[in-house]
Amino acid sequence: MHITSTSNPRIKAIRALRQRKERERTGLFFVEGIRIVTEAIQTNAEIESLVVAPDLLTSQHARELVRAQQKRGVTLLEVSRALFESIAAKDNPQGIGAVVRQQWADLSGLEDLTGLLRLWLALDAAQDPGNIGTILRTSDAVGGAGVILLGHAADPHDPSAVRASMGALFSQRLVRANWDEFLVWKQQHAVALVGTSGEAEHAYTDVIYPSPLVLLMGSEQKGLSPDQQAACDLVVKVPMVGRSDSLNLAVATGVVLYEIFNQRRHRADAIRLGSEPMSP
Amino acid sequence: MHITSTSNPRIKAIRALRQRKERERTGLFFVEGIRIVTEAIQTNAEIESLVVAPDLLTSQHARELVRAQQKRGVTLLEVSRALFESIAAKDNPQGIGAVVRQQWADLSGLEDLTGLLRLWLALDAAQDPGNIGTILRTSDAVGGAGVILLGHAADPHDPSAVRASMGALFSQRLVRANWDEFLVWKQQHAVALVGTSGEAEHAYTDVIYPSPLVLLMGSEQKGLSPDQQAACDLVVKVPMVGRSDSLNLAVATGVVLYEIFNQRRHRADAIRLGSEPMSP
Repeated sequence: MHITSTSNPRIKAIRALRQRKERERTGLFFVEGIRIVTEAIQTNAEIESLVVAPDLLTSQHARELVRAQQKRGVTLLEVSRALFESIAAKDNPQGIGAVVRQQWADLSGLEDLTGLLRLWLALDAAQDPGNIGTILRTSDAVGGAGVILLGHAADPHDPSAVRASMGALFSQRLVRANWDEFLVWKQQHAVALVGTSGEAEHAYTDVIYPSPLVLLMGSEQKGLSPDQQAACDLVVKVPMVGRSDSLNLAVATGVVLYEIFNQRRHRADAIRLGSEPMSP
Repeated sequence: MHITSTSNPRIKAIRALRQRKERERTGLFFVEGIRIVTEAIQTNAEIESLVVAPDLLTSQHARELVRAQQKRGVTLLEVSRALFESIAAKDNPQGIGAVVRQQWADLSGLEDLTGLLRLWLALDAAQDPGNIGTILRTSDAVGGAGVILLGHAADPHDPSAVRASMGALFSQRLVRANWDEFLVWKQQHAVALVGTSGEAEHAYTDVIYPSPLVLLMGSEQKGLSPDQQAACDLVVKVPMVGRSDSLNLAVATGVVLYEIFNQRRHRADAIRLGSEPMSP
């Protein structure tokens, strides 16, 4: 199907996905760029349609990817360069995009958490989609399983979240829940909940993190409430010496995640060393 | 001076500061919000004028701040609510802004670096102003001295950088230099240069960081070139296990900065412990 008109209903539907309301109504979102579309395909995301501007898409690898998807029955919308630029969020687009079905997991689907060396993040009312995307990217890097969005959070399918996640949106699991549901779930499972607060007694480097673990981070504006801190098995602080009293949420999350990850790496090293065959 | 017209030349000049070209031509930038204007005043930033919308500025503390600045001879521009909203970058502005003179230090002005337990960041061709602002905020939190912007970098006075810095822009020193100037300066001073690369042999947690130190981070897209890595006294990697091969620049910088900061904190603790009077 070759489309050139900006008023084509399929194109209008794609452009409408910039709005959160429309993403929620349809359960879809739009991603663009070779890297992220490749990541969607490789992680078996449910792709509704591919949008390609042949004049822009010069990558041989990407063209082959498109052909393979077409063979598998994915709808292909060919559009003019001008039309693609009208739906792309950034300048100089690569000429490939995909309409993808959102994938949300339920808390009840996280039963496998307790059996594994799992690491989850829970974000309370995270307001900045860029932060959520960046946190997904970091969670992927440290082997995290996914992100539980608590309360009224920004949409991880917002274009700026998708862009910041650099594809991790497709490999990380996404859960949404309210605080009460989350608390019930936590109490039903043998999972440790670790929160952060500037007033905590222990620095984040001074504790040994158990597994499985959920790291709970407060919102950009408010941090964790006293009730939320009380629900944690452990609350840690990230020390600071400057004029400011807080870090960017994605940075603070990254710093604590890396401490947890480093402890696990070093423990794994110790186990590997222990299992080395002794020299005779 | 009370202004209501959007075509007033002072208002047009402030609006023009959204453009980098105009910020560079004038050496000025515009900040808004109670927190950041307060930070500018408290750190003795050079304020050219204050812009206040009395209808919006309800904070008593902020009103007193304005009066004190007026007494010190700072120009006050009173504007209508609508006019303030037209120059504000975000919705629901607090009704206070300031035109501030940019403050850049030269490499030659960093002589005091070598005599102190200093920690500097050098960013090569950082492209995202939000990242630069976030990194300034983290540098402030770990007691860093400032940021050296190498090559063609985004502007730390861009509104999104200012916002992300949460005021750290005013307490951190800003330097710009090209790579060759930086190399000469590094060779003239007894300062260690530590770079990061995904191919480095040592993890960032496996080395002891010397002082004074410059942590050199590559750009969002390219990382450090082989030449840049060769110029470093030490190159470290941030381990990763996920599908992605990189972290967000501000997160990666935060993770390494916190390791350096933690080592310094623990060394300081050890020194304090060592100087405790022995019990008889």
